Amino acid sequence: MKGVTILRKLLFVYLILIGVFVVYVYQYQSENTSNNQWSEHELRGTIDENYVMVTFQSGIDYWKRALKGFEDAAEALNVSVEYRGATQYDVNEQITVLEQVIAKKPAGIAVSAMDPDALNDVINKAVEAGIPIVAFDSNAPESKVFSFLGTDNYYAGVTAAHKMAELLNGAGEIGIVTHPKQLNHKERTKGFRETIAKEYPKMNIVSIQDGRGDQMTSKEVVDEMIGKFPNLKGVFASEANGGVGVGQSILEQQKKGEIHIISFDTDKGTLDMVDEGVISATLAQGTWKMGYWSLQYLFHLQHGLAENMEVGRSLPRYVDTGITIVTQENVEAFYPNE
Amino acid sequence: MKGVTILRKLLFVYLILIGVFVVYVYQYQSENTSNNQWSEHELRGTIDENYVMVTFQSGIDYWKRALKGFEDAAEALNVSVEYRGATQYDVNEQITVLEQVIAKKPAGIAVSAMDPDALNDVINKAVEAGIPIVAFDSNAPESKVFSFLGTDNYYAGVTAAHKMAELLNGAGEIGIVTHPKQLNHKERTKGFRETIAKEYPKMNIVSIQDGRGDQMTSKEVVDEMIGKFPNLKGVFASEANGGVGVGQSILEQQKKGEIHIISFDTDKGTLDMVDEGVISATLAQGTWKMGYWSLQYLFHLQHGLAENMEVGRSLPRYVDTGITIVTQENVEAFYPNE
Repeated sequence: MKGVTILRKLLFVYLILIGVFVVYVYQYQSENTSNNQWSEHELRGTIDENYVMVTFQSGIDYWKRALKGFEDAAEALNVSVEYRGATQYDVNEQITVLEQVIAKKPAGIAVSAMDPDALNDVINKAVEAGIPIVAFDSNAPESKVFSFLGTDNYYAGVTAAHKMAELLNGAGEIGIVTHPKQLNHKERTKGFRETIAKEYPKMNIVSIQDGRGDQMTSKEVVDEMIGKFPNLKGVFASEANGGVGVGQSILEQQKKGEIHIISFDTDKGTLDMVDEGVISATLAQGTWKMGYWSLQYLFHLQHGLAENMEVGRSLPRYVDTGITIVTQENVEAFYPNE
Repeated sequence: MKGVTILRKLLFVYLILIGVFVVYVYQYQSENTSNNQWSEHELRGTIDENYVMVTFQSGIDYWKRALKGFEDAAEALNVSVEYRGATQYDVNEQITVLEQVIAKKPAGIAVSAMDPDALNDVINKAVEAGIPIVAFDSNAPESKVFSFLGTDNYYAGVTAAHKMAELLNGAGEIGIVTHPKQLNHKERTKGFRETIAKEYPKMNIVSIQDGRGDQMTSKEVVDEMIGKFPNLKGVFASEANGGVGVGQSILEQQKKGEIHIISFDTDKGTLDMVDEGVISATLAQGTWKMGYWSLQYLFHLQHGLAENMEVGRSLPRYVDTGITIVTQENVEAFYPNE
């Protein structure tokens, strides 16, 4: 009888332990399940959520930072991303790429529009299919994109003017080499001119030339400009090829250090000239930010997070990703393989 | 001997079960611990991270949506928020409030600046103390704020012009009641005027009056305007008190339905007049978005997340939170207690 009593007591303890064990396993499982589901109040997606970045001229360095931002946001939000680009500067190819992307019903699309109007139909098709879509770098303002993230070019010109004034101690003759047919270059030039006119009375813009976005043409117009205005102290180039052309002219005429150049963007040729002190400063666009915040916006649209208290448009209309001034001091950090 | 053998076997099973149980409890605990730590690649803070929103005239409804956005972002990011406001329209009180907030070393501050210049010193003090700070709704452009999130007032005027054209089928005489001493009202008026002039040749702005931000004054100037221009078809009021004053004038002169009013903001008086059809449309600012994205930006600064690939300025410079058009159809959603 005594052995049987002990046996019963042990069996009883045994059953309790099994019970507790089952409860713990169950709790552990349910804890795990809730971690894997997207919770309403958590910024965490799933790996099968696929967001696509679409650009034009897919080979060029310019997009690498934007894609890095897109990827960094994907890591933070636990979602997947993909990159697609038209290989040529061909708007029909970009339309085809977009149509292929839409057919796969991704969780969202960030597009840089090669043409401000030509992509409207295909963008609106994405919106009508319920696919979140934002534009970055180059907008399609008449389309139904939910937001646009890019550089405020007028303000970039303002920034260039202040930097030029700093380099020239607020006095001297300046020239501009620009690409007057493109809207972004017109705006950069306007911001530069208006700021000099309004805030720096001792600075004087003596010549504005069309460099046609071409290195050789830009070099030639500056050769001539230096001939005409021997007291020239600075040149603002609103675009990268022009900036390198201006740099070549200055080098050839042995005016390095005498004439300050401010250029635009951060391709290798420009960075090298900044590093060598030929170009005094170049303006880097916030491409990483364009990619990072594009994905954040798409994620918020996909999860209905941006519509909480707002009726109608659920995201900020426009984001100026801003400008960073690159000089000899910080140029190293802008090389792509850093 | 047989009883003892069974006893030993049971004890053995007993020990194994206890062992497994201990392992499970340990795993469960460690799983929980890792969930509470902030991981580099996860948008998740800690509850002891405290972000503060600072406004002026703390009582008014206008800030409620901004605070709701701030709170919603805090929930998504697992951090704490606090609201502090100067009770009066008194810039010195706001400086004092900001100084008290800075002394507590919060994780970040979102400030709406009562005055565009007076807060520069105290804002820069926060930046120098390593506290992330952004401005929303009203900027301090010469200060060191990392970003500004607010309405593009010029574009709000553009939006109002297009809506007016829609209401008037693109033709008719229009008046404006504004508050010409304040920059935001100047910009709204400019956007409105330039859009009408450029895009709607059959619409004509016949009178621009100063309503002084006051209901009674605005009513009086419109009484007079209607007397002078009997064919008046629309009035744009660039600010809420003015809009209600215009509404009272229209009601008194029994012109409801004949003259369309477009007003600004969503205080109760304005919403009631939209609901009754006296005001045809009012422009709601994206205040929820201002609060939500302010906290996102502060969180990214606090965790060094925005500096990944960028040198220099680590956040977008400016965000236009946009405008939503409120009409009789969607007005219900804009009452605060909805």
